[in-house]
Amino acid sequence: MPVRALVFDVFGTVVDWRSGVMREIAAVAAARGAPVDAGAMADAWRDRYEPAMAAVREGRRPWVKLDVLHRENLAAILGDFGLAGLAEAEIDDLALAWRRLDPWPDVLPGLARLKRRYALATLSNGNVALMVEMARRAGLPWDAVLGAEPTRAYKPDPACYLGTADMLGLAPGDCMMVAAHPGDLVAAAACGLATAYVPRPLEHGPGKGPDAPGPGQHFDVSAFDFEDLARQMGC
Amino acid sequence: MPVRALVFDVFGTVVDWRSGVMREIAAVAAARGAPVDAGAMADAWRDRYEPAMAAVREGRRPWVKLDVLHRENLAAILGDFGLAGLAEAEIDDLALAWRRLDPWPDVLPGLARLKRRYALATLSNGNVALMVEMARRAGLPWDAVLGAEPTRAYKPDPACYLGTADMLGLAPGDCMMVAAHPGDLVAAAACGLATAYVPRPLEHGPGKGPDAPGPGQHFDVSAFDFEDLARQMGC
Repeated sequence: MPVRALVFDVFGTVVDWRSGVMREIAAVAAARGAPVDAGAMADAWRDRYEPAMAAVREGRRPWVKLDVLHRENLAAILGDFGLAGLAEAEIDDLALAWRRLDPWPDVLPGLARLKRRYALATLSNGNVALMVEMARRAGLPWDAVLGAEPTRAYKPDPACYLGTADMLGLAPGDCMMVAAHPGDLVAAAACGLATAYVPRPLEHGPGKGPDAPGPGQHFDVSAFDFEDLARQMGC
Repeated sequence: MPVRALVFDVFGTVVDWRSGVMREIAAVAAARGAPVDAGAMADAWRDRYEPAMAAVREGRRPWVKLDVLHRENLAAILGDFGLAGLAEAEIDDLALAWRRLDPWPDVLPGLARLKRRYALATLSNGNVALMVEMARRAGLPWDAVLGAEPTRAYKPDPACYLGTADMLGLAPGDCMMVAAHPGDLVAAAACGLATAYVPRPLEHGPGKGPDAPGPGQHFDVSAFDFEDLARQMGC
């Protein structure tokens, strides 16, 4: 395999978004003495993520960073969870919870091994500032923060995958997309990228299971975590 | 000072382009048994850098990466230095000498100190792949590779400075431009960035001296190297 760079989905694949967002929601709720189902609110917030990006992808609104979509989506659901009274500055801060997520336990040791041999870049829908703050907080050793904002295209728009490979100076086939989401990998493969599937059984909470491949969906590599991926990639 | 990110010029400020390019020219010349004045050839190559970018900046040609301009500029001068017979693959490889430059001795310890407190990003005219390969080879700990390619604008186009600050999620005044070149700092200051001048007396070779500020050119910080910059920035 001629892979020279690994490009990563981040939310769910690298970091545990649900636990992190729940933690921040719970802290805000506790400070106000409001009883909030943090898991249900995290899920409701995340449910608005894909439709919000679709509006940009389909040209119904101009380019806007994911931080902005996160804030709009949060503001839209606050009332449903008894938090309609939050101050603007509190909403601003909670909206950035997505910058303060923790990696799965295998991520830092796996990336350290992979980085010796491969360039590592984000290929996330998260904007650059979000990815930079997350990486500085969590110690993620990216060589470059690419994906949606530098290419001005939200996944699964092919321009996001192809533009990221181009910025890395590589043919699509020299890049391997790493993701916990089969749909992301299928879109990457359609652009010519190699694919590595790393299931994350806890992404959607206990007992929900990972996003599983559908019938006929096969990937170049399947690994149970990032250390297993490093091993399979010769690191 | 409310600075939250330091953004760096790279060629000359972070890495010693002239010695590195000379080393690669000398190796190619030696392999062919050709007597080449490597310093003169490095200078001739660099002399074509600014006019080549100006053609893009002024709209006389569409966007093109610096790797491509480096190759064109190299091909244009090979004959002047007795290297007209190089094979295409040899030209391709030598053109990427700019990816294989070494940092000045103070850079790695200085950046390690600065990184504890500030986000560190490139704000270079070098393209992403060039910056990524350089950083991986030299151990430069960038949090993000920004500048010309992600913003599609070559310095001193204001769009390069403003677009980089925007991708960092910061107001221009929250960013400090670090450069050995007063012209770069003046352009950054005009966009609202804070400025740090770090002279590099050996950039143009022994006995030439640094690019010195002109009359009336003042910067927020002047530091004699990156460790001094770290000290002055409270790291």
